[in-house]
Amino acid sequence: MNKLLTELIEKNKVYGNKGKLASYIPALLKANKEDLGIVIVDLNGEEFSAGKSDKIFTIQSISKVISLMLAIKDNGYQKVLEKVNVEPTGEGFNSIVNLETKDTKRPYNPMINAGAIVTTSLIKGKTEEEKLKKLIDFMKKATNNENIGINEEVYVSEKLTGDRNRALAYYMKSNGILEGNIEEILDLYFRQCSIEGSARDLARLGAVLANDGVIPWSGEILIEKEICRIAKTIMVTCGMYDASGEFAVKIGIPAKSGVGGGILGAVPKRMGIGVYGPALDEKGNSIAGIELLKDLSNELDLSIF
Amino acid sequence: MNKLLTELIEKNKVYGNKGKLASYIPALLKANKEDLGIVIVDLNGEEFSAGKSDKIFTIQSISKVISLMLAIKDNGYQKVLEKVNVEPTGEGFNSIVNLETKDTKRPYNPMINAGAIVTTSLIKGKTEEEKLKKLIDFMKKATNNENIGINEEVYVSEKLTGDRNRALAYYMKSNGILEGNIEEILDLYFRQCSIEGSARDLARLGAVLANDGVIPWSGEILIEKEICRIAKTIMVTCGMYDASGEFAVKIGIPAKSGVGGGILGAVPKRMGIGVYGPALDEKGNSIAGIELLKDLSNELDLSIF
Amino acid sequence: MNKLLTELIEKNKVYGNKGKLASYIPALLKANKEDLGIVIVDLNGEEFSAGKSDKIFTIQSISKVISLMLAIKDNGYQKVLEKVNVEPTGEGFNSIVNLETKDTKRPYNPMINAGAIVTTSLIKGKTEEEKLKKLIDFMKKATNNENIGINEEVYVSEKLTGDRNRALAYYMKSNGILEGNIEEILDLYFRQCSIEGSARDLARLGAVLANDGVIPWSGEILIEKEICRIAKTIMVTCGMYDASGEFAVKIGIPAKSGVGGGILGAVPKRMGIGVYGPALDEKGNSIAGIELLKDLSNELDLSIF
Amino acid sequence: MNKLLTELIEKNKVYGNKGKLASYIPALLKANKEDLGIVIVDLNGEEFSAGKSDKIFTIQSISKVISLMLAIKDNGYQKVLEKVNVEPTGEGFNSIVNLETKDTKRPYNPMINAGAIVTTSLIKGKTEEEKLKKLIDFMKKATNNENIGINEEVYVSEKLTGDRNRALAYYMKSNGILEGNIEEILDLYFRQCSIEGSARDLARLGAVLANDGVIPWSGEILIEKEICRIAKTIMVTCGMYDASGEFAVKIGIPAKSGVGGGILGAVPKRMGIGVYGPALDEKGNSIAGIELLKDLSNELDLSIF
Repeated sequence: MNKLLTELIEKNKVYGNKGKLASYIPALLKANKEDLGIVIVDLNGEEFSAGKSDKIFTIQSISKVISLMLAIKDNGYQKVLEKVNVEPTGEGFNSIVNLETKDTKRPYNPMINAGAIVTTSLIKGKTEEEKLKKLIDFMKKATNNENIGINEEVYVSEKLTGDRNRALAYYMKSNGILEGNIEEILDLYFRQCSIEGSARDLARLGAVLANDGVIPWSGEILIEKEICRIAKTIMVTCGMYDASGEFAVKIGIPAKSGVGGGILGAVPKRMGIGVYGPALDEKGNSIAGIELLKDLSNELDLSIF
Repeated sequence: MNKLLTELIEKNKVYGNKGKLASYIPALLKANKEDLGIVIVDLNGEEFSAGKSDKIFTIQSISKVISLMLAIKDNGYQKVLEKVNVEPTGEGFNSIVNLETKDTKRPYNPMINAGAIVTTSLIKGKTEEEKLKKLIDFMKKATNNENIGINEEVYVSEKLTGDRNRALAYYMKSNGILEGNIEEILDLYFRQCSIEGSARDLARLGAVLANDGVIPWSGEILIEKEICRIAKTIMVTCGMYDASGEFAVKIGIPAKSGVGGGILGAVPKRMGIGVYGPALDEKGNSIAGIELLKDLSNELDLSIF
Repeated sequence: MNKLLTELIEKNKVYGNKGKLASYIPALLKANKEDLGIVIVDLNGEEFSAGKSDKIFTIQSISKVISLMLAIKDNGYQKVLEKVNVEPTGEGFNSIVNLETKDTKRPYNPMINAGAIVTTSLIKGKTEEEKLKKLIDFMKKATNNENIGINEEVYVSEKLTGDRNRALAYYMKSNGILEGNIEEILDLYFRQCSIEGSARDLARLGAVLANDGVIPWSGEILIEKEICRIAKTIMVTCGMYDASGEFAVKIGIPAKSGVGGGILGAVPKRMGIGVYGPALDEKGNSIAGIELLKDLSNELDLSIF
Repeated sequence: MNKLLTELIEKNKVYGNKGKLASYIPALLKANKEDLGIVIVDLNGEEFSAGKSDKIFTIQSISKVISLMLAIKDNGYQKVLEKVNVEPTGEGFNSIVNLETKDTKRPYNPMINAGAIVTTSLIKGKTEEEKLKKLIDFMKKATNNENIGINEEVYVSEKLTGDRNRALAYYMKSNGILEGNIEEILDLYFRQCSIEGSARDLARLGAVLANDGVIPWSGEILIEKEICRIAKTIMVTCGMYDASGEFAVKIGIPAKSGVGGGILGAVPKRMGIGVYGPALDEKGNSIAGIELLKDLSNELDLSIF
């Protein structure tokens, strides 16, 4: 397996040159476009890796999967569904159009920014610090990594450039979808996007999802099976922005990408996958990472369809 | 003339019962639905009136005409046009859709909220207080009324319920249309909407516009003819929200309405008109006021077409 | 006056080189981009002209003004309004979006294709030929020109390339806005777009509109004053496609353009104007014609605002 | 298994009373709202059934799965993808909006009407009859049922009421997405929608899909594995109209519904499922059928996620 992974890394890392680094935040521009790494964690907890498997980056939108799961854990699925739908949308990740034109003012799904801001707002806690701790603690357990934390530089940048997200949030507040102090909700959202990890951390988290919520290396139940299943389903229908359909056809793995270059994959009952490749395609997904996963899916017959 | 106005008031005030008071702000709900008043000021400064001609209310969106004129005065028409277009739109006054879907991110025109927030932001001044003073001073001169000021209760309410406008503003900031501190810009915008006046004040302002910027009772030039012409044009194409086309067909007078129940009218080279009738139709225009203006336009052949 | 017109033609015909000829129909590509002509007809019937004042071209969308007037004449304004609204729209002339997204399925106004197809369908007559004769006869009287007829080559091309209009028509049929045989309605619509005339013909038609429906050279009433007023109003708010707002601000004349390069102008109580300049700007309006009208409006103070 | 199916039918058939029969075609209104039937075919070809398992109905939109597969077979996936995308959309099945507003004019996916009209147009054949024969022959083989054919009454009705589809087709022709004679393409589309079958037929077709294109009862390869996989993927992301996301979360089976009341299900590597229940929910899916599948998925742990 390690040999296969190494071959695939060598074959695909050249794609990074065709992509672009995310540029809305200075810190993201420091990445190396040819970096490419992958880690696989199977359901026994065994790990396989190649390339930049331990390079640290911010998980960005991948955090939406975590806030979704915590929101369901804290409120139940029905309550969450009242505030955010689970339908895919043809619009981009930061679109505001459908908040206005649709009869129900709910965001389309928890994988677009508007929907993720809602799930973040639904995490329960007395203070923002307490809510953030929940997110971080979840990540620490799911990754078996005590060092999980926030990249302060990225967080500050997110906060400074977050006007589009402010627009989404105030719009939803005016429609009664969002309650409470908007700047506090957004602050938590910007922090969760700034959580740092590596492809290894993502692969471990993916393995927990693939294993129906049970941590492979400890046997501990981290999250309910039903919540895992919902998360994996929404990852397939909505996880790769408006390229989700194409990704499902070509690769067929529940996955979520982030503009930091990470991709979280969870093959039900088989394995977790973590990928890092910071150069993005025009949809905002890791360009080399997607090529790498396409080969991997073909080699190991990973498609769930 | 006074007799005609009195007859038209008596005939049309019953329409108020078919309308609704604006309800997003508690203060607006205190109005009396059957109130109806009209004032006409001709180009000699002579005044005719009937009904609730001196009742005080907040001018709300009518202030958009003033901030448009001051923005052009301070920046020139071309500069303003770079930030806000002058095309009518089929969307509602607080729509955000077109900010996203159109190639140019400019708001459609200065009579919808997004566009008016832009013109307000373009008024020059060292402090917010200085900018507000410009607006108030303009109104004082145009109305020959030293008592023009802000309704503090309404202003505070606007500020509290202004999340939709915050969404519009942050969205435009994220697109580079709006610059500076958003809460400060919105604060000025909320204040200008809370300026108080009567149908008489509006009629006098209308007379200045009808008279190409020259104050009829003093001969003083308050604003350039060209700017007046632009304002009157945009009032026709965009002044009555998404009922502007119907209003132009039926009545044919440059006009601007506000949810406080006021309508400002300016018949080029003939007269200014001020109307007050707080009950609104579903488009947000004074329901009795529009009926009243329809009769008046027919009686006096006021349509410019 | 003729001297002024000649000067303005000379000054502005160079703009034709910056525009593009309409290309969707081969016949339209045969035009000469530097051609520019203007005719003015005053309310005594006196004519002034310069440039290509008698060159023949197809009137295209200018025919929408005629089918609107005939539809109102045959059905009354209220009946027409039930099928087509009179609101300006920010969308382009052949947009289908708003037919779907708005609560009422009526086209926005009679100057966009969807709306004009509706008004054409509302002209009464036993056969298509009879309806066409009504259109042609109206034009003959309004232009004092017995030679008005159809350009068969253009008509055949319109029919061949009319799939977007077919889409609009079938969509409206599925919504109950349009009734009857779609291909027959469209055939009439394509024929009316292929009516030929010159800048002189347009100027005479404009003079009738400016004169409230009375033919200046004969004193005959061709169309009711009220219908003329409606037509002129809608020309201002919607006549120049999605550049109507800018045109109103800069020029301020009720006008309607066609992709054949014609512009029909009607200055209430003053004059009719006909312009021909086949090179178009990106909105589909005669590029040199608009510059010419801008100068003319400034010189003669023609703006109605 | 038969016992389980019988219990689930009894439990869920009451939901039919909460739904509505499709009403745009008279023939569809003759159905019985409480009818509910299910058939399961496993990968050995063994069949289990309960309720109205052999009642005949028109498959309607389920035929979109077949025309998609034949289009790919005849043209290759890349060629099809150039004409129709594979992304889910938040818009309804007969929406025209995105054909206009998106940069690429391709329909969003082959499960909405616009996209299915495209795939139907891509089936190769010298005549319409030859193309129809391909569709019917495919169905005959996939269902082991020589009686598969067209319901002429439904076909005629589809043709008569198909103006919305005509609008979509002409729109796509004007954009170069669709080529050839529109009425002929639509005629074939209306015929394919009028193909008749039973829940048993759908279950057998589903079993072929679940078995990667190999007919379980004969071992014959009917369609390439890769094409089956694409079909199942698109069924998950787009198969249940704009309720696809919710269906995936709650049930997690590749499925496609039709307004005739049928649902085709294909659980990869496990079984085909056919459901019949003509009463529809507001999204156009069989209301009792969905409840039935929810129970079945829970009982047999069928979700692929």
